Amino acid sequence: MILTGPGMSLQAARVLVDQGKLSSALVARLDLFSKPGKWQSTLEGVSQVAALPCPLDICTYARRLAEADQRTGGGPLDLYRVTCPIGVLLCIFEARPEVIVNIASLAIKSGNAAVLKGGKESKNTAAVMSRVLAEALSTTELPSDLIQTVETREDVANLLHQDRYIDLVIPRGSNELVRNIQHEARMPVMGHADGLCSIYVHEDANVQGTVASILDAKLDYPAACNAVETLLIHRNLLDASHSNARLWPQLVESLTKAGVTLHCDDESRQSLSSTSSDHIVPAKSDDFDTEWLDHDVSIKVVGSVGEAIDHINAHGSHHTDAIFCRPLPAADKNGDGTSEHPAASLFTRSLSSANVFVNCSTRFADGFRYGFGTEVGISTGRIHARGPVGLEGLVTYKYLARAGGAGQQKAGDFGSGPDARQWSHAVIEKEYPRF
Amino acid sequence: MILTGPGMSLQAARVLVDQGKLSSALVARLDLFSKPGKWQSTLEGVSQVAALPCPLDICTYARRLAEADQRTGGGPLDLYRVTCPIGVLLCIFEARPEVIVNIASLAIKSGNAAVLKGGKESKNTAAVMSRVLAEALSTTELPSDLIQTVETREDVANLLHQDRYIDLVIPRGSNELVRNIQHEARMPVMGHADGLCSIYVHEDANVQGTVASILDAKLDYPAACNAVETLLIHRNLLDASHSNARLWPQLVESLTKAGVTLHCDDESRQSLSSTSSDHIVPAKSDDFDTEWLDHDVSIKVVGSVGEAIDHINAHGSHHTDAIFCRPLPAADKNGDGTSEHPAASLFTRSLSSANVFVNCSTRFADGFRYGFGTEVGISTGRIHARGPVGLEGLVTYKYLARAGGAGQQKAGDFGSGPDARQWSHAVIEKEYPRF
Repeated sequence: MILTGPGMSLQAARVLVDQGKLSSALVARLDLFSKPGKWQSTLEGVSQVAALPCPLDICTYARRLAEADQRTGGGPLDLYRVTCPIGVLLCIFEARPEVIVNIASLAIKSGNAAVLKGGKESKNTAAVMSRVLAEALSTTELPSDLIQTVETREDVANLLHQDRYIDLVIPRGSNELVRNIQHEARMPVMGHADGLCSIYVHEDANVQGTVASILDAKLDYPAACNAVETLLIHRNLLDASHSNARLWPQLVESLTKAGVTLHCDDESRQSLSSTSSDHIVPAKSDDFDTEWLDHDVSIKVVGSVGEAIDHINAHGSHHTDAIFCRPLPAADKNGDGTSEHPAASLFTRSLSSANVFVNCSTRFADGFRYGFGTEVGISTGRIHARGPVGLEGLVTYKYLARAGGAGQQKAGDFGSGPDARQWSHAVIEKEYPRF
Repeated sequence: MILTGPGMSLQAARVLVDQGKLSSALVARLDLFSKPGKWQSTLEGVSQVAALPCPLDICTYARRLAEADQRTGGGPLDLYRVTCPIGVLLCIFEARPEVIVNIASLAIKSGNAAVLKGGKESKNTAAVMSRVLAEALSTTELPSDLIQTVETREDVANLLHQDRYIDLVIPRGSNELVRNIQHEARMPVMGHADGLCSIYVHEDANVQGTVASILDAKLDYPAACNAVETLLIHRNLLDASHSNARLWPQLVESLTKAGVTLHCDDESRQSLSSTSSDHIVPAKSDDFDTEWLDHDVSIKVVGSVGEAIDHINAHGSHHTDAIFCRPLPAADKNGDGTSEHPAASLFTRSLSSANVFVNCSTRFADGFRYGFGTEVGISTGRIHARGPVGLEGLVTYKYLARAGGAGQQKAGDFGSGPDARQWSHAVIEKEYPRF
């Protein structure tokens, strides 16, 4: 049955392409089978999620609040913080049918119910997948309607006001879509509207590794939220007499050759005055607040890692930011401090972005790449899950208190008098006993 | 200087009490010194917070994303998820001067900046405490304006729209105040509007311990959010021939003697038809959705733990709910299943309230009692911190990636071809190396 589904959407989509009403890029995204490996990797993601440990009922805090109390007959009072599902998720995403599979597998494994709304161009595929999911769920002990799909914007608009029934909204898509949902939703929203990622190149960065990794960050998938949009270059790299002077011209040549337009501040443009290229243009004032999502990058010269941090704090979106500096030694937990790189240390400690990288492409910010199997999205929020959101981001926790013995367990027995019962707060086993 | 501050507020407050414009209960809350031990326990909370481990820079996830790659010269690529401050907190609370001390100590220890707004009746004390905090901070390496106070509702109204500068709002106070803030704020809000806590009494509950603990839950501080508001009684307890038949009459007698009005459903009221008391009244339809915050409790008869769970899910506020059942054996992680109590097991697993207790008073839901030193509030949200919120609830995390070696670290090197670099996702040491 699943094989007829995509065909239904594709057939409808191709008619619209012929009429000039739909881009062929969108049709390619709707097709689960024509691109080699796409369907296979979708299935692999599901298998990886299935193989991960269950994220539920994990104890993350365990304390004996008080020992047993002879006078009142109360046994020991123990407290456990254990993970549990968030509840009902409302997930809104682009016309990418494989996202249904990703989100459904994460929601089921984390014990959450989910209402899914994909882009309208994929609604036939979504309807088929929804049927297949319900059929599969009906062979289990889970409710067959655990994962549901809705089709229209009106359905979504209504659901965004049902804070009694929907616990969390996870929107993916354009900046405008996400902002509208953040504005309309009466329940918490997890995700990101902007992905304005920056890379700072320190004066001691390795030439070859840095240039290759920055090209990846810009070109591996320019429309992705984790593609780099701004390059901050240390001033000394522009000095032709600097020991590392090869880096800057090589970076410029590689980017422009690849068709990337460099939107340069005055200082970087002046340093390139002898380079003739249509791809070097002066930066406009709002370019450093622009998420290009294309073959464009903003370039600014800074005098120190501190200046780079200030720029990123003022203009970035706290998604993913990276520093390139001299190669770091192998990880060694017994490091004596000699392995510390002052600029990398300041960069990683000062920035509060969800993903902060040293010497690697911003494109690594991704749930599959982090080992989560897949992701429901990437969050730039400061509370709950941040960065790529996999199973752990789809659970919350509750505090369980368990009193032993038959006697009273009164909070009022604990106080300041001489007869008061005493708090213990001793650390106890996290493997909590059955109730 | 601090000693003159409270006096200034108290003097102003006493004038208003004489004019009949202020309750004497509020004046008692403003006074930090007249109630024995109040000032001392405020100081103790600060010392406890100071003594807790630092909640920052703790690694909670560590994976080697990929081993070193000979061809590209790239060293190993390692990922660490480490805790970091949330940013700037806006805390709004009642006219209780000691709350300033509690929140300031938690904010400072967790590395957050905070803007505090207490009830207007305590603004003189707040101004003095704010000065003392700034003076103390100026002797440290932290900014002296890390903790600031604002005085007017207009200040708060403005700040609730500054989502670029304020990361999280933590409101405490009346249901109406919290709802207004939830509605107005453009940033996440952590806390709770309602505290409709329920206790379910199973048919095998221990008589003495249950009655004493329920009295504590209702009477230790009736106006508190964790006081019990609804009692759900197993039907068999109303049967005079039941082995545990003493519980129900003893519970009713103890509550009514203590001046608690029982708002009874038909079945419980009929079982008390021979009991003459002004404190037994018929429940109105909305009583089970009412947070009494006084000497009142709603009572309903249920046929099973499942019915109790359904009632709590429909009418509760997911704050704190408890079950009383036969005494549980001592905690034993090697339990063979014989120690499991089916009703307690179902209750603790089915309810998703922030605090779910077995055989103890709902009043234990409190940051100090949980061992957090103090709390900024109690959260009933499903994401981020829940229950009493101490230091751990005031931090978030970021993902740090650290690439070794000089070579390129391109996401595009990982793919499906035969030459593709392979993901590792091996678990590595959480004690991460310096950058």
